[in-house]
Amino acid sequence: MTNDVISGGQPIHAPDNLQPLLESILQQALTVNDGKVADYIPALAEVKSDYCALTVATLDGNVMSVGDADKAFSIQSISKVFGLMLAMERVGDSLWERVQMEPSGQPFNSIVQLEWEQGIPRNPMINAGAILISDVLVSHYSASKSALLSMVRGLCGSEEVYVDYRVHESEREHGARNSALAYLMKSFNNIESDVEEVLDHYFWQCALTMSTEQLARGMAFLANRGKCPHSGRQITTHRDSQRINALLSTSGMYDQSGQFAFTVGLPAKSGVGGGIVAIVPDYGVICAWSPPLNSYGNSARGMYMIRELANNLGLSVY
Amino acid sequence: MTNDVISGGQPIHAPDNLQPLLESILQQALTVNDGKVADYIPALAEVKSDYCALTVATLDGNVMSVGDADKAFSIQSISKVFGLMLAMERVGDSLWERVQMEPSGQPFNSIVQLEWEQGIPRNPMINAGAILISDVLVSHYSASKSALLSMVRGLCGSEEVYVDYRVHESEREHGARNSALAYLMKSFNNIESDVEEVLDHYFWQCALTMSTEQLARGMAFLANRGKCPHSGRQITTHRDSQRINALLSTSGMYDQSGQFAFTVGLPAKSGVGGGIVAIVPDYGVICAWSPPLNSYGNSARGMYMIRELANNLGLSVY
Amino acid sequence: MTNDVISGGQPIHAPDNLQPLLESILQQALTVNDGKVADYIPALAEVKSDYCALTVATLDGNVMSVGDADKAFSIQSISKVFGLMLAMERVGDSLWERVQMEPSGQPFNSIVQLEWEQGIPRNPMINAGAILISDVLVSHYSASKSALLSMVRGLCGSEEVYVDYRVHESEREHGARNSALAYLMKSFNNIESDVEEVLDHYFWQCALTMSTEQLARGMAFLANRGKCPHSGRQITTHRDSQRINALLSTSGMYDQSGQFAFTVGLPAKSGVGGGIVAIVPDYGVICAWSPPLNSYGNSARGMYMIRELANNLGLSVY
Amino acid sequence: MTNDVISGGQPIHAPDNLQPLLESILQQALTVNDGKVADYIPALAEVKSDYCALTVATLDGNVMSVGDADKAFSIQSISKVFGLMLAMERVGDSLWERVQMEPSGQPFNSIVQLEWEQGIPRNPMINAGAILISDVLVSHYSASKSALLSMVRGLCGSEEVYVDYRVHESEREHGARNSALAYLMKSFNNIESDVEEVLDHYFWQCALTMSTEQLARGMAFLANRGKCPHSGRQITTHRDSQRINALLSTSGMYDQSGQFAFTVGLPAKSGVGGGIVAIVPDYGVICAWSPPLNSYGNSARGMYMIRELANNLGLSVY
Repeated sequence: MTNDVISGGQPIHAPDNLQPLLESILQQALTVNDGKVADYIPALAEVKSDYCALTVATLDGNVMSVGDADKAFSIQSISKVFGLMLAMERVGDSLWERVQMEPSGQPFNSIVQLEWEQGIPRNPMINAGAILISDVLVSHYSASKSALLSMVRGLCGSEEVYVDYRVHESEREHGARNSALAYLMKSFNNIESDVEEVLDHYFWQCALTMSTEQLARGMAFLANRGKCPHSGRQITTHRDSQRINALLSTSGMYDQSGQFAFTVGLPAKSGVGGGIVAIVPDYGVICAWSPPLNSYGNSARGMYMIRELANNLGLSVY
Repeated sequence: MTNDVISGGQPIHAPDNLQPLLESILQQALTVNDGKVADYIPALAEVKSDYCALTVATLDGNVMSVGDADKAFSIQSISKVFGLMLAMERVGDSLWERVQMEPSGQPFNSIVQLEWEQGIPRNPMINAGAILISDVLVSHYSASKSALLSMVRGLCGSEEVYVDYRVHESEREHGARNSALAYLMKSFNNIESDVEEVLDHYFWQCALTMSTEQLARGMAFLANRGKCPHSGRQITTHRDSQRINALLSTSGMYDQSGQFAFTVGLPAKSGVGGGIVAIVPDYGVICAWSPPLNSYGNSARGMYMIRELANNLGLSVY
Repeated sequence: MTNDVISGGQPIHAPDNLQPLLESILQQALTVNDGKVADYIPALAEVKSDYCALTVATLDGNVMSVGDADKAFSIQSISKVFGLMLAMERVGDSLWERVQMEPSGQPFNSIVQLEWEQGIPRNPMINAGAILISDVLVSHYSASKSALLSMVRGLCGSEEVYVDYRVHESEREHGARNSALAYLMKSFNNIESDVEEVLDHYFWQCALTMSTEQLARGMAFLANRGKCPHSGRQITTHRDSQRINALLSTSGMYDQSGQFAFTVGLPAKSGVGGGIVAIVPDYGVICAWSPPLNSYGNSARGMYMIRELANNLGLSVY
Repeated sequence: MTNDVISGGQPIHAPDNLQPLLESILQQALTVNDGKVADYIPALAEVKSDYCALTVATLDGNVMSVGDADKAFSIQSISKVFGLMLAMERVGDSLWERVQMEPSGQPFNSIVQLEWEQGIPRNPMINAGAILISDVLVSHYSASKSALLSMVRGLCGSEEVYVDYRVHESEREHGARNSALAYLMKSFNNIESDVEEVLDHYFWQCALTMSTEQLARGMAFLANRGKCPHSGRQITTHRDSQRINALLSTSGMYDQSGQFAFTVGLPAKSGVGGGIVAIVPDYGVICAWSPPLNSYGNSARGMYMIRELANNLGLSVY
């Protein structure tokens, strides 16, 4: 009665119906109370701290959820994955002349490292790297925002994916550090377009909102060798889906990426809105959301839920 | 006629006999000439630059090799994996209070980061972390060297694994930076035993020598859920083998770890002696050796051979 | 026949007529050819490299010059002294809550240090500090530019002091790193006014032009216990003139300040336009100008001329 | 009835008898209670926190003291001035190829900066610089300790200057950070002699003890153009005394050197034993001692006493 799916070289003994397990993990997660809702912008600080959602979308099309899985939230840094995807498609490997693919060993918004590395960001998952990706998009698309939104809606299989304009505005008003990163890259001639336009795209992109169910669908191609399991479209090559997963494995969880690999063992990306999405190659996607963050900027309950589920089902790729 | 092995969620169409593929990759590798033999100690600088070996050991017991696969070389930093293994067994999770598990984003011998992090090394694969592991071994074993050598010989299934005393001596004489790292940790009270004794263990351990065939066997338990496929002994838990592989994935290839994950997608560890060992969970171990190093300190030909083989067989765990 | 002036505790045996000495030093300086004209903005790169001027203005009203002493040049960072003066007058000691008074031990435009120090610049003579001073001026004056220009003209005793609008424009266009510094301070809440307005004031101020004779007069109050020897006006207190001189002694010559103190022993400030002004307490002001810069950003010939003159006359305050 | 002494270009209206002023300043200083006795080694931690002494030695031979001015204390980093003096005499200007003369902008024991600067210390007043000076002494003297002690006794005019062997021992036992600095310099080939021997000299030198009266005499040559006012011997050239004073002005008071220049305006050196010595060129030496340190490692009461006295007598060289 189990649905043996292969992942990480081992059969995943995932039951046909994960629902009871998800429910139990959610209940335990709600007792985790040591996080703190992001307060660097008012629009995020106001989100209720008790939202909690967990979704598993398997490649066969099953989507199982518990909690607030239909409530849209600010995906923030998770949008960096979509931006990277679009830029890789557009400019190919020349991208990697302007941004590295190494873990940073530093906070996500470190300006010190950017200075040492002469304006070349360590990877596209830290802020500097994502701003650089925004520059690529702004420079190569006449309308970078609609290009990205259109791609995201296609991946999520829904036109009901929006940008929260209040968050966008709030990001812009409190984005001085990101401006500093952008201008520093400009000073090293590693920004091609107008800095303010680049930052506007970046802040806009961070303000994308979706539910855990939408987000799980949107990332499913990364678990499915580059092919969207819903539309059947080959979004990217198997090779590039592995490469993106590799990046998420070494750099997706801020300065807790090593610990996440050690304890969970899955490619993943989180955002300060409290979302975390984890890729299980050849199995599916796990998406968790709960606003309070731990000291690294990752959702405290989200970390708990994904770790429990991954360990329970034996999902580590290692 | 193919031996379908499962790894990374995908059947590896590895032929029964990899020999022709290995031979072809070796020949191509010999045309790679842009590396430079390590010269920080005389004993390493003297090694002939044209040695080249490639070994694949699969979990079913097959060992296929080409080139100088029976020639012993200095495994250097690869010994960090053995040291970590022994320390994890001995002190359990309390180990992680004294060393982190995050990628460093810095050169392997960075003293700057150790200062910022108040004497807590970023991970056990950089020099500071391995010196700390040496402190654990020296503090918990009455004879740390023989404890380690005995474990290594058992894993390799051979008593013919030795330490090169000339290399050991040479390391000690040219180890001022490692001494600086050790004393800096001492100043933060993160070294318990006598600093000179700890350094002596560390330099000794770096001087372990073995062939690619011995090394491939010695690491096979990491590909086999913690169980040595030769002796059948459970060396460590499946959980801990995944955790070590996770560490190698984020931090095993010096400041080229992200690029290695991106282009190869396997847990791996390299040493300045020119060796690289890569773990393919549930399939086996690949071991390459050639002395000339690229600018990151990884074997130039070794990188080439492992990348070619992994891409050819589709081995990425992502 | 000598005019015994007291300085640094020792009588300066300065001849009534320094002219022959200045002439001889200028001739030697013209043989110094190892500098390079600043080329970070086109407007500076075009200045002829063979301009050379040396002026000594003593407190008794004598002004002796050789070379191109009536040619206006871009005073660049020397304007930081005027800006600081105006800010100190306006906000008093509260200024020092937002900027320190310590030497930086770093290049003048270091963003690394600003990050460590949480957005508090090390001193008002590095770029970050001078941008902060610009914020103070913009925030406290309805028209900060005319307030500064008016003060400078008064000190120089000439209405013929201008801002080079081409340099101003050029600074703005190539000022990305300064923008990064300003936004980083903003992110630490250490900029009060609009960042773009603050930067505009800063770039404008850097574009002030004057001749060595004008500049020597303009700084004379610092050698005269705060009193302008020309107008007789007490510009600032004796105490504050000593404090500004102290700052110039530890931080006025970029990352060559220690060497300048060691070899010359006078408070001084230089700019990348090739100007250097040195204060000799109770004696007068020395001002040198020649565009080619050494590797620290100080005028190569200017350093030579001031060192020779100071050693010849025994002017070190130490 | 005043003794007009010339300094900083201005007559010092120092009364014939400073005793009442010193007494009043000492009484006020005793109410300063915000410091903390150095506790990094037990031998220093045990010193009574209420010791307080102030001595002024003028060049005419007068020595005026209040408080515990005959009690020997550990001069610690003040010994760096004596070590530098001896090394400058021995190797001349070639010294400056191995150590810079720039303020560090960093804590006195920073290893980060030493790494950036490739093992070349920023100046001889930080620990790394003084360890390098120790290497020079050990390398150039067959008996570096007795050479130094002999010079110091000669300067102080007393054979009663000793090394506290308990402090020496204690420094060695708790000197791991200094060992790290030394080995890091060794790794950059900037230490010539045996590291342990160099460190032994350094720790020994730090353990020199003397009273404020002895110390004031011992530094008097720096206020007197290089000539010892007691013995009449020319210890060094006028030029070199100015150069040492310049170094003390930019780098003598740890990371509070800029503030000391700003508020006091005198070359000075302090030690974590609570001593501070300030040079008044052409006037004399001020020496203060009180064990509790402020957050920069400078004696809290010592700072107060020297600032009060300097401001009262108008001693700033600027």
